Amino acid sequence: MKLLITGAAGFLGARLARTLLARGQLAGRPITALVLADLHAPPPELLADARVQARSGALLEQAAALGAEGFDGVFHLASAVSAECELDFELGLRSNLDTTRALLDALRLGGQAPRFVFASSVAVFGGDATLPLPALVRDDTLPLPQSSYGIHKFICEQLVADYTRKGYIDGRSARLMTVAVRPGRPNGAASGFLSGIVREPLAGLDAVCPVAPETAVALASPAATIAGLIRAYEAAREDFGGRSALNLPALTVTVRQMLDALAALAGPEALARVRFEPDPAIARLVGGWPARFESARCARLGLVPEADFLGVLRQYAADHPQAIRVPLRL
Amino acid sequence: MKLLITGAAGFLGARLARTLLARGQLAGRPITALVLADLHAPPPELLADARVQARSGALLEQAAALGAEGFDGVFHLASAVSAECELDFELGLRSNLDTTRALLDALRLGGQAPRFVFASSVAVFGGDATLPLPALVRDDTLPLPQSSYGIHKFICEQLVADYTRKGYIDGRSARLMTVAVRPGRPNGAASGFLSGIVREPLAGLDAVCPVAPETAVALASPAATIAGLIRAYEAAREDFGGRSALNLPALTVTVRQMLDALAALAGPEALARVRFEPDPAIARLVGGWPARFESARCARLGLVPEADFLGVLRQYAADHPQAIRVPLRL
Repeated sequence: MKLLITGAAGFLGARLARTLLARGQLAGRPITALVLADLHAPPPELLADARVQARSGALLEQAAALGAEGFDGVFHLASAVSAECELDFELGLRSNLDTTRALLDALRLGGQAPRFVFASSVAVFGGDATLPLPALVRDDTLPLPQSSYGIHKFICEQLVADYTRKGYIDGRSARLMTVAVRPGRPNGAASGFLSGIVREPLAGLDAVCPVAPETAVALASPAATIAGLIRAYEAAREDFGGRSALNLPALTVTVRQMLDALAALAGPEALARVRFEPDPAIARLVGGWPARFESARCARLGLVPEADFLGVLRQYAADHPQAIRVPLRL
Repeated sequence: MKLLITGAAGFLGARLARTLLARGQLAGRPITALVLADLHAPPPELLADARVQARSGALLEQAAALGAEGFDGVFHLASAVSAECELDFELGLRSNLDTTRALLDALRLGGQAPRFVFASSVAVFGGDATLPLPALVRDDTLPLPQSSYGIHKFICEQLVADYTRKGYIDGRSARLMTVAVRPGRPNGAASGFLSGIVREPLAGLDAVCPVAPETAVALASPAATIAGLIRAYEAAREDFGGRSALNLPALTVTVRQMLDALAALAGPEALARVRFEPDPAIARLVGGWPARFESARCARLGLVPEADFLGVLRQYAADHPQAIRVPLRL
């Protein structure tokens, strides 16, 4: 089978590609070709695999050719991130709305009705004075996105649902939680600090936390996130349950609990690297996202959140040993 | 002030134009210019008013010029109807999604931040096996549109909310109930029969009802619908309550209750004109729409549904005496 990953040079896209290549199959069918589309070239070790081809450039311009090329399955991860979209309204429209629409139309005209996993986001949720966000978010909670990023993700969920209803694709939208711990450098997402406040101290660097320590957030590890995307792909239509988007499992933690785990793993010296500098814009965005979820559909699909943040930190240390520059206690 | 109505040659658009011209003011400001945009020319009596100008042609092509022209307020009613969109997917995308997007972008670039009322629809609601539609629809009920028409209306609500959040417009989305009784000929909407089954017998003609008599529907009269749109425009931002769409008031009636009212107004001869011929496609669409609503926001805005369908029938007979060809009893 031939698969497409968009946003494949990003952290999650590249990890998904590595995971799929290592599995060798998806939904029981051998993966014979994996096309990695991104603005940037994918990591060299992925390109070294004979099954991999890269399509580099703006996805909006590549969409028609990709649709004509034809795929059995698509993971659509390409996206501008939340803070970028708040700064540049037209960039958000183009990168997150027009691009997804163009890809869906190209696949519709291609006529192969591929299975299609759309990476939506917990950022669809928000509340306002009239309809405040409930304390516990369920499958039928009304999203009231409070950012362009969330608006565009929610709109694309609607498109995926309708193109699926019409039989043009077999689409499934999965809402990703904030992914932590991300390796590398900050990426401009409003949630980026949720990786930085532990990643930088583990690298022996200082970090800034722009929100209060009692801020609760819904996180998922990179491994759990990739597992969720693959499960959304492999689920039978009736198991996925309807065409509405699935909230992937979330570990609810406060920033303080995250830092407690950091101290447990790397000691008070690591913890002392983190200083609090409130940023109202970031606090407003992140504070508007829900922190607690209940998902009957996830449970039916066998998707569960991590047990605690210390386990998430250990996963990061094991996956990125070269990024750990301080002695670990555990 | 200068106003724009899109879809102004349609039944509701023309009625809104007539109502506004008769009022002479909106939100306390005199209406000095009223631009009527539509694929077709507006009714001649509207064009005869010195304040009225027509812009005829496809709105998608006119949007940029309208944005540059500048308006204090906009009522965006232009839309392809539900059954058309199910038959022609690309028509629906173009007429209901791309056109609204183009209009919003033109107004954003125009820089006047006009007040903007978007005519959304009860057709955003639906349910599926995983998340069935609740018996009572509230302000925070999650729409799961089951038609392209509903999908596009719901997407446009999201765009209106985000362009409003960014200050590009002062937008308010109002979800119209099924409007009955519509005068004239059927318009291709799946809900068209809800006017036809009383309108045709009152004209001495036969009518076909494609759904079972116990089918419950949520209706609003033309006068109540126009009043709702104007109230949505005139409401102070804080009174409108948030940026999410408002479900306009609905009268819940069964088809049987509608026909009982017909018999009360025009006798058993009129009732005998209606025959039942089930149409599964229409029944599926209409049966998927909610019939019962509870809206705290409408109550706060002073918007209430009609008391009964007989009153709605009487409104129709009074508004369109030339369309009544049978003796009335009341």
